[in-house]
Amino acid sequence: MPRLRLALAQSNPIVGDFEGNSEQIIAAARRAWEAGADILLTGEMAISGYPIEDLASQPGFLRASHVAVDALAVRLAAQGLGELVVIVGHPDGPFEPRTLGSSNAPTAIAQNCASVLQGGEVRARYAKHHLPNYSVFDEYRVFIPGDELLVLRVAQPGRPAADVALIICEDLWRDGGPIARVLRADAGLLLVINASPFERDKDETRLPLVTRRARETGTIVAYVNIVGGQDELVFDGDSVVVDGAGTILARAPQFREHLLIVDVDPADAIDHPRADDVVLVEVAARNDTPARAAAPDVAVLPDDREQLWNALVLGLRDYVRKNRFASVVLGLSGGIDSSVCAALAADAIGADRVHGVSMPSRYSSPGSRSDADDLAERIGLHYSTQPIAELVHPIETQLGLRGTAAENVQARIRGVILMAESNMRGHLVLTTGNKTELAVGYSTIYGDSAGGFAPIKDVPKTQVWELARWRNEAALARGERPPIPENSISKPPSAELRPDQTDQDTLPPYEVLDAVLDGYVNRRLGVADIVAQGFDREVVEFVAGLVDRAEWKRRQGAIGPKISGMAFGRDRRVPITSRWAGR
Amino acid sequence: MPRLRLALAQSNPIVGDFEGNSEQIIAAARRAWEAGADILLTGEMAISGYPIEDLASQPGFLRASHVAVDALAVRLAAQGLGELVVIVGHPDGPFEPRTLGSSNAPTAIAQNCASVLQGGEVRARYAKHHLPNYSVFDEYRVFIPGDELLVLRVAQPGRPAADVALIICEDLWRDGGPIARVLRADAGLLLVINASPFERDKDETRLPLVTRRARETGTIVAYVNIVGGQDELVFDGDSVVVDGAGTILARAPQFREHLLIVDVDPADAIDHPRADDVVLVEVAARNDTPARAAAPDVAVLPDDREQLWNALVLGLRDYVRKNRFASVVLGLSGGIDSSVCAALAADAIGADRVHGVSMPSRYSSPGSRSDADDLAERIGLHYSTQPIAELVHPIETQLGLRGTAAENVQARIRGVILMAESNMRGHLVLTTGNKTELAVGYSTIYGDSAGGFAPIKDVPKTQVWELARWRNEAALARGERPPIPENSISKPPSAELRPDQTDQDTLPPYEVLDAVLDGYVNRRLGVADIVAQGFDREVVEFVAGLVDRAEWKRRQGAIGPKISGMAFGRDRRVPITSRWAGR
Repeated sequence: MPRLRLALAQSNPIVGDFEGNSEQIIAAARRAWEAGADILLTGEMAISGYPIEDLASQPGFLRASHVAVDALAVRLAAQGLGELVVIVGHPDGPFEPRTLGSSNAPTAIAQNCASVLQGGEVRARYAKHHLPNYSVFDEYRVFIPGDELLVLRVAQPGRPAADVALIICEDLWRDGGPIARVLRADAGLLLVINASPFERDKDETRLPLVTRRARETGTIVAYVNIVGGQDELVFDGDSVVVDGAGTILARAPQFREHLLIVDVDPADAIDHPRADDVVLVEVAARNDTPARAAAPDVAVLPDDREQLWNALVLGLRDYVRKNRFASVVLGLSGGIDSSVCAALAADAIGADRVHGVSMPSRYSSPGSRSDADDLAERIGLHYSTQPIAELVHPIETQLGLRGTAAENVQARIRGVILMAESNMRGHLVLTTGNKTELAVGYSTIYGDSAGGFAPIKDVPKTQVWELARWRNEAALARGERPPIPENSISKPPSAELRPDQTDQDTLPPYEVLDAVLDGYVNRRLGVADIVAQGFDREVVEFVAGLVDRAEWKRRQGAIGPKISGMAFGRDRRVPITSRWAGR
Repeated sequence: MPRLRLALAQSNPIVGDFEGNSEQIIAAARRAWEAGADILLTGEMAISGYPIEDLASQPGFLRASHVAVDALAVRLAAQGLGELVVIVGHPDGPFEPRTLGSSNAPTAIAQNCASVLQGGEVRARYAKHHLPNYSVFDEYRVFIPGDELLVLRVAQPGRPAADVALIICEDLWRDGGPIARVLRADAGLLLVINASPFERDKDETRLPLVTRRARETGTIVAYVNIVGGQDELVFDGDSVVVDGAGTILARAPQFREHLLIVDVDPADAIDHPRADDVVLVEVAARNDTPARAAAPDVAVLPDDREQLWNALVLGLRDYVRKNRFASVVLGLSGGIDSSVCAALAADAIGADRVHGVSMPSRYSSPGSRSDADDLAERIGLHYSTQPIAELVHPIETQLGLRGTAAENVQARIRGVILMAESNMRGHLVLTTGNKTELAVGYSTIYGDSAGGFAPIKDVPKTQVWELARWRNEAALARGERPPIPENSISKPPSAELRPDQTDQDTLPPYEVLDAVLDGYVNRRLGVADIVAQGFDREVVEFVAGLVDRAEWKRRQGAIGPKISGMAFGRDRRVPITSRWAGR
């Protein structure tokens, strides 16, 4: 008989949807209970969604979160699930602001918490110690750090108890933080709830960390992550349970909701004097622990390109779904970027909800048009054509445009057409620019950059080609027709805004460009550092200059002086995707 | 004979322009020295500009800053200014990252410093303790906090020395921070260097704080602030010197560069054992302290509306100047928003650099056109007319547009025209939306919201009217013709995108709307809280819903999934206005 059966709920919450997220947790609790679990573990902020950004500074939002947790405990008990220990992640508050002396600035009034529910009530609560405030994280901005370690002493019928420590995400990453106390507390099992976003090669750091912590603390580590797209972030799930020897006991699949069930045998609790900063709370395991379960799931990650494709599909699908769009529209140029976006969209929401518009100009080559036609036919999306020549001509003539101004008007009229399609039919407009374009500003503001969601915004051009090839290969491997025309992959890229234009009239070869951008943008290297790697100084300075100057274009304008207590922009950061209605 | 003569350099730096900012400091040092000063104090980060955001994470940027400070010391001495004590604000680094355990995320490698220069070298350095990370501030994200207090013992010919403590901005605001140590150290003078942005009524908190700290510590407090626009922020200057009794000894004017000279008589230094966390460094006052100077400047602040107008003018002027635009263009509808923006632009850069375009549609009333003509004539700006009917018609017809889609196309064609003017002639496009519109999304994305700078982005509609009236009154008081046509102020506002449309067809009266928005946006109140203040529930819920749904429009789209180590957006925050060239 195993000591404890754990259930890890890899759920996909929507920010602010306390009701819907609670329903997800209750459904997982029911399945967990029926599967014989003692403890159900949700992800970080599973009841509110993550990240909530400055919603954490709205007292009403925090009160709603607090009430939702209390209500969840009551509802679980009312549905006969009160015996199950449910650990739920949520923001809590409002608390007295973290003192900032005389400053009257907005300060943190919330904590990032995990609550332990059993018997219809909240039995214990842990507040995250380490608040990441780098990269996409702004937790130090809005949360008050916790300073106590929580240990659950799980009483078991006819056996010694087991001590289970509970921490949250970043707490696991920091040396000398609560991890050191977990070791001192002699816990047998460490539960970690997380909202850990996907990025390329993340599994090369995350899993080794979990494994190392299991070894260091001599505990079994159960690591649960949320899954799903939330605005700019994609959470990959990949929840995992690792024992003190570093062996993976169970692993959930990436990019989909999953309930991971696994039996664990933590060491007996050791009764010794506790430090002041450790809170010990007794909870009970179930009375009827059933026989050892079937072998748990141990998912194997697919290769990098497939992971990346899946992340982009999920990010797009969830943005559409969570913002309640029924369909998307995008311009189809016959080029690689729009072709990959169309294939992603079809994989995300089905080709019958994808609308492609070909918008040829006098400079569009016959090849481009036939590539776009071919793509539309391969994917089976809705397809229409809106030639732009007759729309652009009156503007060019009235304003006397030439050169770049005339080129840009073509792109902007295409933006006008797609936004009109959106206004008429409710489609979400996808903008198809890649990371390389965005980095160097190789796009027309309010033109091809117009749209609500940019599926490949963070994919460099060279990777767009890689993804296209991978997607076609995957189709062939499944006996399907490759969605992306070979010609769209192999031809030289062109904006087709003037005769015989190619991207390389203006930009270095993409292999060079992407390598320089990787240094300058991703790795924060200076020009000299990149030149030292063997790149041409003139090219590097040219590219760095483009990146520096494109910042206003990436923000799409709309900068203005802040003169009041609270301005939109850097001063007030809230999710786009949110069900919170300001109650 | 006064003990010490201080010079406070209220300078206007440009982010990343180490050379230009150094020149400003050297020029101030020369004037200070000629005026008999012992110590010159610059603002926070006066040598790099503020805020530098994630440039603080580029090792090359930090090395450039470090070198610039060393070079400044040498150049000052080489120009015969080596005897002057110059205290300069700057970022420093790169340092070893603040430890984050196993995380491989980007971490802080910089400190926010003040360096004390004398005799051609850096004599001492203080690192800011308290790193604000709320509202527009993200300092905790990129800086490592300091933990020592710096006291300068200023030796004076023929007199006992004076002890001078030095802190940075937020350090002054926190109770129990370095302020407590300043008191224990028995300093006679407290120097505070700041980058403190303007907001409405800021002087109601900032000056009382400075006064209170002077009383609490029994020191004279010299508070120097930078001035100027930097992207979304406007620094107002308003540098001030207050004695231990709370009396204002000197005060610089708002919103312009100034060198504030003042004599101070701090108490004699008291020699007692120092705490470990206090660093004492000796510097020398000048040997030739001249006779007591003329009475120092004590500026008086103008009323709130004038302060606000001046802030908006400076924000706009500096965005244009620092980004090297020669001129601006904006659409003139005859309405209040574009009229106020035109008047602001003329005050900021002169009417001869302002280009107004009237873009009437079939729905534009004759009154609107004549109001726009009247405004252009009063201000004396460049004025042209581009009717849009012939440009909109082919699009409407080809796409079969009606309703909102047809209305939006008019606004978008106007955006196309202004952007084409910008592309042809290099103008910066001003977008004229106010804060109320932006809050509720009452604008057309890629239409009237298109542009590089939004002068009244943070001004609610009711305040736009107030400003217009104030500006006209100010003109009359100076015997000038009021710039804004009375009819533009008094007529009911309308987008004029369909016949007989007014804003109040769709929105509550602006007095109500702005009051609700003040609660919901500025004060983070919930719907229930606002209703409790006496507002109609239906109206409050309607407005809150508009604000929640407008978030994507405020961001102008361009959201996309992050899948790499470093994506544009929340993950990488850099200034738009910057001379840093990625060396």
